[in-house]
Amino acid sequence: MRKETLERVRRFTDEREWDQFHSPENLAKSIVIEAAELLECFQWNGGEYDMQHVKEELADVLVYSYNLLDKLGLDVDEIVNMKMSLNEEKYPVAKAKGNATKYNQL
Amino acid sequence: MRKETLERVRRFTDEREWDQFHSPENLAKSIVIEAAELLECFQWNGGEYDMQHVKEELADVLVYSYNLLDKLGLDVDEIVNMKMSLNEEKYPVAKAKGNATKYNQL
Amino acid sequence: MRKETLERVRRFTDEREWDQFHSPENLAKSIVIEAAELLECFQWNGGEYDMQHVKEELADVLVYSYNLLDKLGLDVDEIVNMKMSLNEEKYPVAKAKGNATKYNQL
Amino acid sequence: MRKETLERVRRFTDEREWDQFHSPENLAKSIVIEAAELLECFQWNGGEYDMQHVKEELADVLVYSYNLLDKLGLDVDEIVNMKMSLNEEKYPVAKAKGNATKYNQL
Repeated sequence: MRKETLERVRRFTDEREWDQFHSPENLAKSIVIEAAELLECFQWNGGEYDMQHVKEELADVLVYSYNLLDKLGLDVDEIVNMKMSLNEEKYPVAKAKGNATKYNQL
Repeated sequence: MRKETLERVRRFTDEREWDQFHSPENLAKSIVIEAAELLECFQWNGGEYDMQHVKEELADVLVYSYNLLDKLGLDVDEIVNMKMSLNEEKYPVAKAKGNATKYNQL
Repeated sequence: MRKETLERVRRFTDEREWDQFHSPENLAKSIVIEAAELLECFQWNGGEYDMQHVKEELADVLVYSYNLLDKLGLDVDEIVNMKMSLNEEKYPVAKAKGNATKYNQL
Repeated sequence: MRKETLERVRRFTDEREWDQFHSPENLAKSIVIEAAELLECFQWNGGEYDMQHVKEELADVLVYSYNLLDKLGLDVDEIVNMKMSLNEEKYPVAKAKGNATKYNQL
């Protein structure tokens, strides 16, 4: 996300004085609520979906995720790189390549 | 997310040939699954949480969200700005400021 | 659920003095957490699933749902019948029959 | 749930010929979607909630859970008792009593 986009997200909350509702717990609830609305786009027929609806719900997941990063003083690149290091170790290419059972029973 | 971080996320999937499992629907399922694991950090006591666990689960939500952006050929700044325009219109500052009933009954 | 099963569910919480953690909000969080674990059984290949795992996660959803009914003093038959009346009105047979777009755009 | 209530739930699906949409995977998605709508009742202020809204969303979780039981030919008492046996073994009263860290770090 570009700096100006992130600043717009922050200004939205600031101008409405909504930071008071943005406890880490409330933001975690909000992320799962929006993620479920995103899943709803694929509820009965996973192969057909309304792209505008998908865009809006995915944007909501991202906005709340960046809100939570801000709230906890976290850096997106730092935590994603930390997690990718864990993932790379957990799923070595040699074992994981093309493996459908991947995440679960590797 | 910086370009190099995003490239690492993409390379992880490519090297394992996991793109075949990343249908939009499967990624939407994955986002809600990880979002619920994030919420689990706040399950019984919302005020106390293990920061390392929160970082890992929030990173998972972000990684799958960027996977879905890629899969659908979406630009994060474009969809977030589109959604912020809708939000700004829906919640005018004058009505929304400091309002606890916000998203719901405004 | 039979009366003896429900009593076993209640006794489990009572004996551990866990009712103190079972606020309606915490139970609502727990239901969505377990529902996502149920979905995880269908994460990468919706057509193949481990039945024992499905049974365990579905049982968790049901147990927490009955915990919440208890906590709020609700009767399962009363609320399900109330909701079915709403559903029957919202989705009249003549319009809804065999309609794939059902819940969404009817 | 009483037999007549369950029969009403089944008749609702049958009359609309909606069984074709009720794959185990789609029902698992539906359970998490409704569970997130239930959580939405507690999104910004966990202590205040609209009881009618809670009733409706909890009923939806229960209806889809019973749909899934039916679809998989499972008996609610059998799976809940199976899971309670596992829980009772995993959380012995002596260790778990009144323990706030319960499910997680016991």
